[in-house]
Amino acid sequence: MEQGFQLVKSCPRSGARAGLIGTSRGPLPTPLFAPVGSQGTVKALTPDDLKAIGVTMVLGNTYHLYLRPGIAAVEALGGLHRFMSWDRPILTDSGGYQVFSLAPLRRVDDQGVWFRSHIDGTEHFFTPEKVVEFQAQLGSDIAMPLDECPPYGGDRASIRAATERTHRWAERSLACHRRPGQSLYGIVQGGTYPELRRQSAAAITSLGFPGYAIGGLSVGEPKSVTLEAVEETTSCLPREHPRYLMGVGSPEDLFECVARGVDLFDSALPTRTARNGALFTSEGRCNIQNARFRDADRAIDADCPCYTCRGFSAAYLHHLFKSRELLAYRLATIHNLSFIIRLIERMRQAILDGRFVELREDFLAGYRTTDEETRILQKQKWLNRPSRSAGEGHGAEDAGVVP
Amino acid sequence: MEQGFQLVKSCPRSGARAGLIGTSRGPLPTPLFAPVGSQGTVKALTPDDLKAIGVTMVLGNTYHLYLRPGIAAVEALGGLHRFMSWDRPILTDSGGYQVFSLAPLRRVDDQGVWFRSHIDGTEHFFTPEKVVEFQAQLGSDIAMPLDECPPYGGDRASIRAATERTHRWAERSLACHRRPGQSLYGIVQGGTYPELRRQSAAAITSLGFPGYAIGGLSVGEPKSVTLEAVEETTSCLPREHPRYLMGVGSPEDLFECVARGVDLFDSALPTRTARNGALFTSEGRCNIQNARFRDADRAIDADCPCYTCRGFSAAYLHHLFKSRELLAYRLATIHNLSFIIRLIERMRQAILDGRFVELREDFLAGYRTTDEETRILQKQKWLNRPSRSAGEGHGAEDAGVVP
Repeated sequence: MEQGFQLVKSCPRSGARAGLIGTSRGPLPTPLFAPVGSQGTVKALTPDDLKAIGVTMVLGNTYHLYLRPGIAAVEALGGLHRFMSWDRPILTDSGGYQVFSLAPLRRVDDQGVWFRSHIDGTEHFFTPEKVVEFQAQLGSDIAMPLDECPPYGGDRASIRAATERTHRWAERSLACHRRPGQSLYGIVQGGTYPELRRQSAAAITSLGFPGYAIGGLSVGEPKSVTLEAVEETTSCLPREHPRYLMGVGSPEDLFECVARGVDLFDSALPTRTARNGALFTSEGRCNIQNARFRDADRAIDADCPCYTCRGFSAAYLHHLFKSRELLAYRLATIHNLSFIIRLIERMRQAILDGRFVELREDFLAGYRTTDEETRILQKQKWLNRPSRSAGEGHGAEDAGVVP
Repeated sequence: MEQGFQLVKSCPRSGARAGLIGTSRGPLPTPLFAPVGSQGTVKALTPDDLKAIGVTMVLGNTYHLYLRPGIAAVEALGGLHRFMSWDRPILTDSGGYQVFSLAPLRRVDDQGVWFRSHIDGTEHFFTPEKVVEFQAQLGSDIAMPLDECPPYGGDRASIRAATERTHRWAERSLACHRRPGQSLYGIVQGGTYPELRRQSAAAITSLGFPGYAIGGLSVGEPKSVTLEAVEETTSCLPREHPRYLMGVGSPEDLFECVARGVDLFDSALPTRTARNGALFTSEGRCNIQNARFRDADRAIDADCPCYTCRGFSAAYLHHLFKSRELLAYRLATIHNLSFIIRLIERMRQAILDGRFVELREDFLAGYRTTDEETRILQKQKWLNRPSRSAGEGHGAEDAGVVP
């Protein structure tokens, strides 16, 4: 099933699907969560750590790798897989999101986008064709076309214009894409305007991509708006192709979006929050730096079989964070990523067993989600922070450098 | 051979020895290098990393653990081994060195030493008896008595006074030490005054410890002075007990000091320099951030079998350091520590095979050492840096927080 998508089972009581995405490096079971490794590394982890956790695909970022070490450098070193010593599939983001959110002084017209490097201020120019070529040089398994990503809150006319440009760019990207073994997905935009979403889905699917991404969400809008836009979009996408929601990765969001027919996710949230000491448990996120963990002679999450929970107490993690020890970030990242990977594996199994709706209800009944106000505040704070330039990826949810 | 020392072989053409230090957690082959894990973690590494590298013993620090998380907290969590999930031997430093170098506002008299925490400024009081008790609570395999550590360059009278106080404290420490399965070593002081060294060795050995440490060196003095003081001291120590040189860990120093009869070392140098991007190779230390590594599609050290060298190119390491990625510090630490552990294993084997002198000559002929002036400048810079408070251990050679 090279590069195709096989729909294995659909949930009769929700939009949830279990499937297989074919790649030249083997099939990927879906639903699937890909952690973010923008700069050629999932922060703090080795490829062996990732495999032990059960990660099947990671995300690399064209914008970050273009600026450092450079696309030609990665190609000369054998491509991104060999460079980072990762032999499982890699999805590369086009860098569109980063250009439109990280880089200062950008100008965009139909030809492409000019921007300045957030690292050294040098000026650069991306076109849809260049971005396809960059990803061919990186050698990723799934590539994304350049898209225009307007911020949340734009008026209908500006969102429409950006969406229509994204369509023209998608067509040009498809026309020049010819890397064997690499799938180029289309990206649906349209902001939070339902009819723009529908128009975008129609335009992009008419071009015939092997998979479809839902872009332009999780950028500061209320969660109900995200979920409506996801539902609106997936309802317009063909059943026989995978759907990829960019930038979503909290446990509750994964459940809600799998229920709305999404197959593939990436987000920096599990790894970024880990480095800030916010650890997932079956009861919700906890702050390991809280004094209640000082003497806690037990694992962070009693049910978690990860390396961190098997070997180390919450009290030890608390100590490492308080002491700002490097090991803190690694052990926390292992835990959060294991939690998410295991959750998505449980979702898949539940879909196969016909009990996805029950799993979702059970999980969400016990899981205390971050309240909406706090969530949006955190997100806005992150979106506006100056040091964000060392960003972790598409999800707009990265702490960059550890405090 | 519980808690004893077995001298297996002596080099006929140098002072080098191969031996076995008995502990309740099994015998430790010597010469031995113990990496520094002051705060209950060897920076950036898990216990599994350490085992894969071949580390047989790590060093914990009483001063750091006393301040955070607290000795009673570690004891309540099952002792230091369980706390940090490390089931091989641990040597704990008494904290004397840290009190006399890190903590502000110290007052010392025969009773003990008052100091302020470098973390929160609170006042504390250490006595020899308390320090023995602390290490009993931590449950280390080898413990060290409180000693007075004057800085380099003190006059004879002040060094003599500190040395004699160290002797009185050693006697009190031995008198109250009763933790089963834990060996309390004596510490020889005397600065760089040969006759004070001899007197200190005589005084300390007359008390009858199972092992002897050489303290007060590697604190900013020229290397020739260090080596003379080491030689002076080891010549006064009994053959049938292990000799432990505190704070030494560069490849060239290990060769020189093994040749002078030292069995056991600890130092933060390999791990600290790793985090600064200074990586050991058979030709000398290299700075991985140097532009010549940008395109280097080969391991850092062609002969090195470590995880880092097996899996990743120098160019990738260069990229990680340039991008300040957390993985940089871990991969670099794995390499430097593997280099030192493998070197010390090769020394042991060479002693057993009767070719230690040849190995030393061969290695040093190919190895470009850091020149003396640079070395002392770096050391002084480190000793004076304000952020040193997050220090890594006895060796006075720690970068603390990564840049």
